[in-house]
Amino acid sequence: MTSSELHVVVPAGGSGTRLWPLSRAGNPKFLHALTGTDRSLLQATFDRLTPLAPATNLLVVTGTAHAAGVARQLPDLPDRNILVEPFARDSCAAIALAAAVIERRNPGGVMASFAADHLITDTAEFAHTVAKAVEGARDGYLMTIGITPTRPETGYGYLRCSEIARRSVIQRVLEFKEKPSLEVATRYIESGNYLWNASMFVWRTDVFLAELAARRPDVADPISRIADAWGTDHQEDVLAELWPTVPKVAVEYAVMEPAAEEGKVATVPGDFGWSDIGDFETVVRLLGTDIGEGGRSFTSGPADARAVVVDGSDVIVVPAGGRLVATLGVRDLIVVDTADAVLVCDRDRAQDIKRLTEILRDRGDAEYL
Amino acid sequence: MTSSELHVVVPAGGSGTRLWPLSRAGNPKFLHALTGTDRSLLQATFDRLTPLAPATNLLVVTGTAHAAGVARQLPDLPDRNILVEPFARDSCAAIALAAAVIERRNPGGVMASFAADHLITDTAEFAHTVAKAVEGARDGYLMTIGITPTRPETGYGYLRCSEIARRSVIQRVLEFKEKPSLEVATRYIESGNYLWNASMFVWRTDVFLAELAARRPDVADPISRIADAWGTDHQEDVLAELWPTVPKVAVEYAVMEPAAEEGKVATVPGDFGWSDIGDFETVVRLLGTDIGEGGRSFTSGPADARAVVVDGSDVIVVPAGGRLVATLGVRDLIVVDTADAVLVCDRDRAQDIKRLTEILRDRGDAEYL
Repeated sequence: MTSSELHVVVPAGGSGTRLWPLSRAGNPKFLHALTGTDRSLLQATFDRLTPLAPATNLLVVTGTAHAAGVARQLPDLPDRNILVEPFARDSCAAIALAAAVIERRNPGGVMASFAADHLITDTAEFAHTVAKAVEGARDGYLMTIGITPTRPETGYGYLRCSEIARRSVIQRVLEFKEKPSLEVATRYIESGNYLWNASMFVWRTDVFLAELAARRPDVADPISRIADAWGTDHQEDVLAELWPTVPKVAVEYAVMEPAAEEGKVATVPGDFGWSDIGDFETVVRLLGTDIGEGGRSFTSGPADARAVVVDGSDVIVVPAGGRLVATLGVRDLIVVDTADAVLVCDRDRAQDIKRLTEILRDRGDAEYL
Repeated sequence: MTSSELHVVVPAGGSGTRLWPLSRAGNPKFLHALTGTDRSLLQATFDRLTPLAPATNLLVVTGTAHAAGVARQLPDLPDRNILVEPFARDSCAAIALAAAVIERRNPGGVMASFAADHLITDTAEFAHTVAKAVEGARDGYLMTIGITPTRPETGYGYLRCSEIARRSVIQRVLEFKEKPSLEVATRYIESGNYLWNASMFVWRTDVFLAELAARRPDVADPISRIADAWGTDHQEDVLAELWPTVPKVAVEYAVMEPAAEEGKVATVPGDFGWSDIGDFETVVRLLGTDIGEGGRSFTSGPADARAVVVDGSDVIVVPAGGRLVATLGVRDLIVVDTADAVLVCDRDRAQDIKRLTEILRDRGDAEYL
């Protein structure tokens, strides 16, 4: 039965502006070796997924700027499985396109979707959790894999579950929660009913597409026509006509939240050493090395990149430009060196790096973004 | 009368460690365009001196690592006027070697000596002051040109004069003073009797060499034998034999201070916009541009080097590596980018950059020095 085959989708978008200047629009974080090995985040994701599905069933949805990078980094991925969006239309469009293409290739197939830029340390437990979620998907649920939270993180959204979350036990998701305040996040953790939303989804493509069609025909209709034309000589014309009309909306907002209210969403709590490589603090906490005198560094660049901290305190150095980076007498700083740009940032301002990139764009420095 | 000709000596040594990583052992500050033009400090010094003496009378004393750089930057300087020391033996050896070589070329000539890494804005007044000092030298004094102080600087030595220092009026130097405390420096300035010692000397070579021979035969004797061999096919052998025996001593300590006690040293106060380009604070104060948001930058490198400061306060950026250097939310920092090294330094620790370079040497990073 082909319908029992698992298809895995990896939306590979977003430039990771909080990791600028390491991550760039043209060279985003998922193409970087932010994994503690020489594999990129995307490659590590691919490595983690190939035991779950054959390469013919793996799809990457990416943008025009990254199609070549994806193709080069994943030589075993068939060309037809790299879906290139003309421009970004948020997660609902990307996931719906993948679902519709898969549905046409394998009606009633099960599809799982995982971000390209997450780290997972326990791949066996991950595979086990996905298998459990596939069971729920076969039963007709829109499944998520929620991450068992380890701290009251304010940077993620949460899933409110119907009962105390237990590893590998399927339960209903009652509600999707936006990023909370620290106070609220602390309450979530204490209750035991909340999981981190890591945007990991598992469902039958026919179930998902029916939900989408019922709730958001403005997304479902053009995506359906685009999927019909996908791989034909009409693909480009149809994309040119319809893609610009697809609304920009997150899949959580368009489908999952309203479906959860109707009891159609369930989750498997996952506890497999998950991390979102979102900012330099995380990169250096997970992958960095203590270099003494108050310094911690992470190197992913040329071998002769070096960091030297003297009389420092809470200094993060990312020498990725093949140069020596030395700091003297400084504290609470992030210093990032790359081939063409250097960033020196107060640690308390790390979340504003995105704003800095906007300022650079306004000043005509878009070539560095 | 050839003895009336002026010879000018430029000791070009020292790597300028307080300007690391801009200034390097192999590419010291005097070879850098730290002048506000595309001329290096050495070239600007040469430009200032050529009106005072023909190129045949200009000598540069430098080290083995910089001979080629000096030769390339000063194409009009005859080869024989580049005196290359086997290794540095402090200022007395360098100046004595030049004096002895000049004395053999032009007995009783007048020699003036000026550092290669100072900036002077009023070159006409400088020439006028030198001419006045040459008068004193012809009268047999060991002349200095003292700089009329503009602030109670603790980073320079001082000259105590016999009377209130007045521009272009020759007066006795009673004493050479080491770098003072702020309190002492303030008293010096208030008294009006003190000038900054910028190691600018003017004297008859025969007078200087006689003083040296009387006070420091341990320097004078080997230097005399080396000068005898200079330009002959014995030069190298004699240097190999004698140069290592030359004591390392500053000319102030060896000759000028004791001579001053005997009333043989005089000075002409100079007021010609003099600056010692010693550290990044000075570079950026004199040559920098206000770039807004609390940032000030100085660029001497590739044209595409850029500095962007966002929400900064007292931030100095020296982008000399052809890269964009961006800071976000930082204060009181010096950020220097070069082709192979980046420095991020607290402004209060700028005087410790020399220490940082020593740490780098100890750690095996001498290639960056």
